[in-house]
Amino acid sequence: MYPEAVRWSDDGRAVDILDQTALPEREERLRLERLDDVAHAIRTLQVRGAPAIGVTAALGLALEAAGTTALATSDFHANLARAAEVLRATRPTAVNLPWAIDRILACADAHHDQPSGVIACKLYGEATRILEEDRAMCRAIGEHGVSLIADGASVLTHCNAGALATSGMGTALAPVYVAHERGQRVRVFSCETRPLLQGSRITAWELQRAGIDVTVIADSVAASLFRDGRIDLVIVGADRIAANGDTVNKVGTYALAVLARHHGVPFYVAAPGSTVDPATPDGPAIPIEERDPDEVRRGFGRLTAPAEVPVFSPAFDMTPADFITAIITEAGVLQPPFAASLRDTCARAVEGTA
Amino acid sequence: MYPEAVRWSDDGRAVDILDQTALPEREERLRLERLDDVAHAIRTLQVRGAPAIGVTAALGLALEAAGTTALATSDFHANLARAAEVLRATRPTAVNLPWAIDRILACADAHHDQPSGVIACKLYGEATRILEEDRAMCRAIGEHGVSLIADGASVLTHCNAGALATSGMGTALAPVYVAHERGQRVRVFSCETRPLLQGSRITAWELQRAGIDVTVIADSVAASLFRDGRIDLVIVGADRIAANGDTVNKVGTYALAVLARHHGVPFYVAAPGSTVDPATPDGPAIPIEERDPDEVRRGFGRLTAPAEVPVFSPAFDMTPADFITAIITEAGVLQPPFAASLRDTCARAVEGTA
Repeated sequence: MYPEAVRWSDDGRAVDILDQTALPEREERLRLERLDDVAHAIRTLQVRGAPAIGVTAALGLALEAAGTTALATSDFHANLARAAEVLRATRPTAVNLPWAIDRILACADAHHDQPSGVIACKLYGEATRILEEDRAMCRAIGEHGVSLIADGASVLTHCNAGALATSGMGTALAPVYVAHERGQRVRVFSCETRPLLQGSRITAWELQRAGIDVTVIADSVAASLFRDGRIDLVIVGADRIAANGDTVNKVGTYALAVLARHHGVPFYVAAPGSTVDPATPDGPAIPIEERDPDEVRRGFGRLTAPAEVPVFSPAFDMTPADFITAIITEAGVLQPPFAASLRDTCARAVEGTA
Repeated sequence: MYPEAVRWSDDGRAVDILDQTALPEREERLRLERLDDVAHAIRTLQVRGAPAIGVTAALGLALEAAGTTALATSDFHANLARAAEVLRATRPTAVNLPWAIDRILACADAHHDQPSGVIACKLYGEATRILEEDRAMCRAIGEHGVSLIADGASVLTHCNAGALATSGMGTALAPVYVAHERGQRVRVFSCETRPLLQGSRITAWELQRAGIDVTVIADSVAASLFRDGRIDLVIVGADRIAANGDTVNKVGTYALAVLARHHGVPFYVAAPGSTVDPATPDGPAIPIEERDPDEVRRGFGRLTAPAEVPVFSPAFDMTPADFITAIITEAGVLQPPFAASLRDTCARAVEGTA
């Protein structure tokens, strides 16, 4: 069983998260009872990963509503709006955060004139749906993706697109968890992922805790594994997928894509349909954020480079669509050409919503 | 001017080294007056890099001889033999260390029956020759290699094959230093080189100190630079070159070679002829040492992966000869097929010695 990044507490009166800032040293769960606890948890990366952040915010807002039902209706709504802005300001860039908050606010709007207690119940239900949809999305990616993993296969992954980035079994790691559930033998090589080491700190921790065979490598060791024929497939997550399938993900992903092609190894991207941005035609149109140079120069609490040396530290890189063997989504395994298969999938998703 | 890793002190009565364990925080030179100081410096990596270690040991032995000329001849020789064994035991694997020690002992043998004072003078001269030959080797690599660097070029390098690994201007970085001396504009991207970060701690430091434009990148960022057309050539060092040109170097080198080929960028190896091992037919015959997993799991004084998680951490990787555009040696820039060009170079080197 994968570790749960975020869930309701057993009594339903708190958000229960795994404190990711304590990893890999200690496994500690936190009980978040107040809005400030939830905001603090998101702000300080106790919970991280875009889907997990969105779910946490939704649960936190529902909790705030449940605690303020004694207010007059107008005060109840004013307080909810204030709480939404507090949570919205916790992380500036994650797209799932405003999406989840707006969904809770829309639900409150739809029931605007009902008693506060009734609205709070509706919001509790909506937050729970957001949580369950996220879990279902992860499992669907896992069920579709497991068909790509032969018994005994070795999977290479990068960064963390696992359970700890979602409220379910993750995206890139979901096919691995499903394979393991079914009793298949599966082995994972996890790139440590400099500079912030999500691969060694988080991916390795969650797989090891689930009893899955995992080996950590420095990012530059992947090439040796490919050359020695020790990698059967690559699965990575995605931060944003353009309409043509070009994929932006954690820096280091593109190097693995080039190495995979050179060594004849399939390269898969696993991500929910919500990651696809039909308005962006291709990868070069996506801006790449640069990180603080000190994450490279002194990221471990000591100086590991000259204090003022220039550093080029992009957070992401872009893998062109033609390096990608298939894209695993909750709707199925999409084959190239991705411009067509992504368009069809998005169209179906829109129909399903309507 | 490049920083000098090892030299005689101004008064000629001590070995003067740059303390590399203080980098990149502080630039401190150490005056090594006694054999124990020299052994300690090699053992604790205050001086590192195979050529620099060999030179330091030679200078240290000559110093020991100069300090014991009052002994009777047989005691003088016995003491020298003991000192040689102390230095030989400081680092188990560096090939230049026993080579330099044996060369000093052979010189002492050649003058065995002369007075201790005379022998000490001969050893001082021999140690100085070892130092000067190393410097000349570096400069010759630089003078040959500079022809490959156009004005304004950007060079990508990995690990440290620079001045601080030799007593001169290094091997892979020598063409860069010569280009800079000649007033050419040259820019270096230095891969930080996990797990031990020689690229960010040492290469970036020595280039910055010499006034050369250097930018540090996490190893996995190199692919983005290639894709954006920001790398004109790659120059790396070598730990061992097989008879056919297959090259073993710091892990991460092979990934850069694959990326360079994919993006149409020339990939050069710079190394002295002594790195070529004619007895090893090809790369797969060279064993690859594995490092301590804790260099990856807790290399910076804190836990960055689960404490007991398996780690695959080879120290080196192997780049097949057909990925290498040319090999820059002190004898010239060798073109493929390397089996022939390396054989000719080694043959000329043997003739030169005879």
